[in-house]
Amino acid sequence: MDTPLLNDSDLHFLLYEFLDTEALLARPRYCEHSREVFDATLNTAKTIAEKYFANHNAKGDAHEPQFDGEKVSLIPETQAAWNAFAEAGFLAAHHDFDDGGLQMPEVILRTAMAYFTAANIATAGYGFLTIGAANLIHTFGSPEQKARFLPAMLDGRASGTMALTEPGQGSALADIKTSATPADDGSYRIRGNKMYISGGDHSLTENIIHLVLAKIAGAPAGAGGISLFIVPKFLVNDDGTLGARNDVALAGLLHKMGFRNTTSTVLNFGERDGAIGYLVGEPHQGLRYMFQMMNEARIGVGAGAAILGYQGFNYSLNYARQRPQGRLPSSRDATSPQVNIIEHADVRRLLLSQKAYAEGGLALCLYASSLVEDARTGATETARTNAFTLLDLITPVVKSWPSKYGLKANDNAIQVLGGAGYIREYPVEQYFRDNRLNPIHEGTEGIQGLDLLGRKVPQKNMAGYQLLRAAINATLDDARPFDSAHALAQTLATHLHAFDQTTQQLMARLAQTPDATLANATVYLDVFGRVLVSWLWLKQAVIASRQLDQHRTDLPDVEINFYRGKLQAARYYIEWELPEIMPQLALLDGANSRCFDMQDAWF
Amino acid sequence: MDTPLLNDSDLHFLLYEFLDTEALLARPRYCEHSREVFDATLNTAKTIAEKYFANHNAKGDAHEPQFDGEKVSLIPETQAAWNAFAEAGFLAAHHDFDDGGLQMPEVILRTAMAYFTAANIATAGYGFLTIGAANLIHTFGSPEQKARFLPAMLDGRASGTMALTEPGQGSALADIKTSATPADDGSYRIRGNKMYISGGDHSLTENIIHLVLAKIAGAPAGAGGISLFIVPKFLVNDDGTLGARNDVALAGLLHKMGFRNTTSTVLNFGERDGAIGYLVGEPHQGLRYMFQMMNEARIGVGAGAAILGYQGFNYSLNYARQRPQGRLPSSRDATSPQVNIIEHADVRRLLLSQKAYAEGGLALCLYASSLVEDARTGATETARTNAFTLLDLITPVVKSWPSKYGLKANDNAIQVLGGAGYIREYPVEQYFRDNRLNPIHEGTEGIQGLDLLGRKVPQKNMAGYQLLRAAINATLDDARPFDSAHALAQTLATHLHAFDQTTQQLMARLAQTPDATLANATVYLDVFGRVLVSWLWLKQAVIASRQLDQHRTDLPDVEINFYRGKLQAARYYIEWELPEIMPQLALLDGANSRCFDMQDAWF
Repeated sequence: MDTPLLNDSDLHFLLYEFLDTEALLARPRYCEHSREVFDATLNTAKTIAEKYFANHNAKGDAHEPQFDGEKVSLIPETQAAWNAFAEAGFLAAHHDFDDGGLQMPEVILRTAMAYFTAANIATAGYGFLTIGAANLIHTFGSPEQKARFLPAMLDGRASGTMALTEPGQGSALADIKTSATPADDGSYRIRGNKMYISGGDHSLTENIIHLVLAKIAGAPAGAGGISLFIVPKFLVNDDGTLGARNDVALAGLLHKMGFRNTTSTVLNFGERDGAIGYLVGEPHQGLRYMFQMMNEARIGVGAGAAILGYQGFNYSLNYARQRPQGRLPSSRDATSPQVNIIEHADVRRLLLSQKAYAEGGLALCLYASSLVEDARTGATETARTNAFTLLDLITPVVKSWPSKYGLKANDNAIQVLGGAGYIREYPVEQYFRDNRLNPIHEGTEGIQGLDLLGRKVPQKNMAGYQLLRAAINATLDDARPFDSAHALAQTLATHLHAFDQTTQQLMARLAQTPDATLANATVYLDVFGRVLVSWLWLKQAVIASRQLDQHRTDLPDVEINFYRGKLQAARYYIEWELPEIMPQLALLDGANSRCFDMQDAWF
Repeated sequence: MDTPLLNDSDLHFLLYEFLDTEALLARPRYCEHSREVFDATLNTAKTIAEKYFANHNAKGDAHEPQFDGEKVSLIPETQAAWNAFAEAGFLAAHHDFDDGGLQMPEVILRTAMAYFTAANIATAGYGFLTIGAANLIHTFGSPEQKARFLPAMLDGRASGTMALTEPGQGSALADIKTSATPADDGSYRIRGNKMYISGGDHSLTENIIHLVLAKIAGAPAGAGGISLFIVPKFLVNDDGTLGARNDVALAGLLHKMGFRNTTSTVLNFGERDGAIGYLVGEPHQGLRYMFQMMNEARIGVGAGAAILGYQGFNYSLNYARQRPQGRLPSSRDATSPQVNIIEHADVRRLLLSQKAYAEGGLALCLYASSLVEDARTGATETARTNAFTLLDLITPVVKSWPSKYGLKANDNAIQVLGGAGYIREYPVEQYFRDNRLNPIHEGTEGIQGLDLLGRKVPQKNMAGYQLLRAAINATLDDARPFDSAHALAQTLATHLHAFDQTTQQLMARLAQTPDATLANATVYLDVFGRVLVSWLWLKQAVIASRQLDQHRTDLPDVEINFYRGKLQAARYYIEWELPEIMPQLALLDGANSRCFDMQDAWF
């Protein structure tokens, strides 16, 4: 039983009904594109993902990368996938025509990437890391650096990494120890150890371009003393050919629970003479540069988590439709035929929750991608600023909500399969293992909570929050004409009222008692996520209601069923999952300090 | 960093303060024992678990059992562990002195077994399965069967299995296809395939005794037509020596996400002439017999899940005490030293929730074991009946609550470790993988919900429910003298009131609309579990409050801290996790039918 990659109907719904992606064609940057070009791009991605990525998702898990002390070897299918991805132009697709790119909008690319993630998140990782690293050089590098390093990263000869974490420093990057010493030629010598560096070594490309955070001697303490360096595995000559091996050594591979075909490495920089590194931009601005990319990486993490949830949903749904087992509680006739397990209400709960998490998570990430786009190419300065402000607010939630609930979706997929879900002969346990990384990397759930409550909500006099609330209120209005959506809107409105009050209270307390108030930031993060996703489900319910109300007689059954499914998932989410914020808000309102007060010695 | 096995202080608290295990010494069966004998038994278990089980927990995961087509091989440490377990008498410890046992009470044995589980749940599985299978023969087998099969199962020459599941039948055992045909000599010929049979083949023992569910030709349809058979791998001669190989063949091993050193097998019975099987007890009573054991197995699953949660808690607590990272939100000085991560409130939340789940889950399972004991050796018929009735009610919760929240504890342990939590170089990801089995086997969460709401609560005019409520009310009274416990008791009482009302409503609806009412049974199961565990935490809070109130000046600091920790965990659970039942009760009260109404075609 193959797992289909995502759901084309849903993707088209999200791009062209939920979002207004066709409207991008009116923007100068995309005026040469068309809906057909967008769809062709998605089709190409799907075709390559099915042929070159899906074929070794299980194999890459069972035969993880090996390091023999000299060389890292991957299963050969990984190379074929890398080549196909690069040859189709996906490494460069969002770059300008003039730079050899396709000027593809962010939301289309994010959707195209979704197919690769769905097929094989670990193999897809090499491409995603390279795109991110190249973006960083493209945005902040000098013309000379761009000319030297970007061409190979855009055509697939070189891959990229983000080398932030060290054995002693993960979440607290301000305390990194890796040093950078100026050399006479204007370059730097980098010395230090980096850990958990994804794609830090492998056999796919002739070169690997590491983007490394390090401190120049005499830099200010803390986050304001970190600089960003390009440190290639092999030096690159002026003509683009490879030069000498740089002083970057693979100390070893780490062995992950899942996500195995992406190498996770420990890298030693400068064990001999110092690794040659090139400063990107200004000294001491490295963390700021990195965070611009990190914020896009966070959307990528959220999308990956949602998509793994989606794949578990797809598989378990097909399984539930085909697996006979038992009878309904009211059936007393032991000789009657068994029903397929989708007939059991609790199995439907497990499936419907997966639908809510997976489709809701993907909707959230594509919405965020549309904000990335609007922040860049929106028609007016106000539109661009508002998009950026809103995106900045919700980024911690876009990262963390799908990570938490995509994993829960995979948990539920295992539960649908029962014993079959627990063995590696079926794919769902791998999705679960792969997905467990997502609440950790690019900032843990706890970090996202602190970022949201401590920084993103209060900043600019809550401008982002006000924008979000206005957007939600607009959807509440849109729901009014449709009975079923309106009922959901009323439930959401009631909860929003409580949410607003709690948020105001927290803002007032934040300045007085920051440690105690931020102690419960993770609770606020979950509440915020439930509210945000309820809104996005309401938006989907409004569209579905409109279609069902206005076009019921014209629509084919398959579309009627699609919209009914959307409406039912919205009902499930808003009636089953949103109300759980009420006890959470009570904890926040009461400034419950049980965790804050807990003492080490009491454990 | 070694992970300590459980926490001796907590085990002694649970056995001798939370439960009154010493009172068992007054019962005739245990009059030759003493507290010292109990403690010595626990110490023996701990010593063997540390020496022979903990040493290969990771290795057994990395080098799972192999089948070369003829023989299953396990890493050799498994054999040493089996031998040590058997030689110490644990296979027979609960049997009568006259049968070579130690007449050890259930709750002491369950605690002793906890050490083995903590050290290595997969290797411990062989012993636990054998104890369960031997219990079944001991309870329902004929004197001749007992004489033939039990001695080798009690001294470790033979192991046992429970062969229920088939490729086509898991949860719905009533539909199994394995057949049993009477032979002239009074035995039967068994033919069929069994799947997911734990310990179904291995190299540890000279013989394996399978307890197999099968249908005799002409049996009634459904659950009332299933019989139980002893089917040994090797026939056993009258003198106890091994005879011919029986017609039971290993078709293959299944490859689990975790729990790997316990083989999971596909067995073919009767591919040649039919496997020789011996009917246990009466025909068509097999499922009833099996369920007597299954109910104890369910406590075992709950205990295993709680203990894996416990081990993740232990490891992540030690890690959090030693890992420096970051500063408190209020700290603006980048040059100040970093704090250990236990100083971060959200890490304390992750730890405190683990404490609540792990210690709460173990308390639940030991309480259930005390009911098993009381049902057997309680002083009066009423005491025995009440214990059985109460145990029967809560068994689905004892199985499912720790399975759900023990897994969540392991999830939180990973999160405390961050990146380190996700790699196999640290132990917590294995606990998480091992634990994911527990919500599946011995009846999924969905099955437990149906059992609880559909059968256990309503049965005997809700006699079990009334007993439980009376027990909870007694604890509410006990809390009255102590301010802190009394405040928790009031919170619990408020929620109990709502819980009682919902339960009554559901009982009224159950007869009218069984399918719709049972559709939300899993929600009720979770609510019930939160109420039950809140009660057990309140009991612990009352004890802690009494000690802190009455003996504060006498107690050493370490004990004061222990009781403060208990009190804080109770506060956490009752204030943070119990109130989540309110939106759940609203779903149940409103008979929310979103999942029930969802249609296959809408997905």
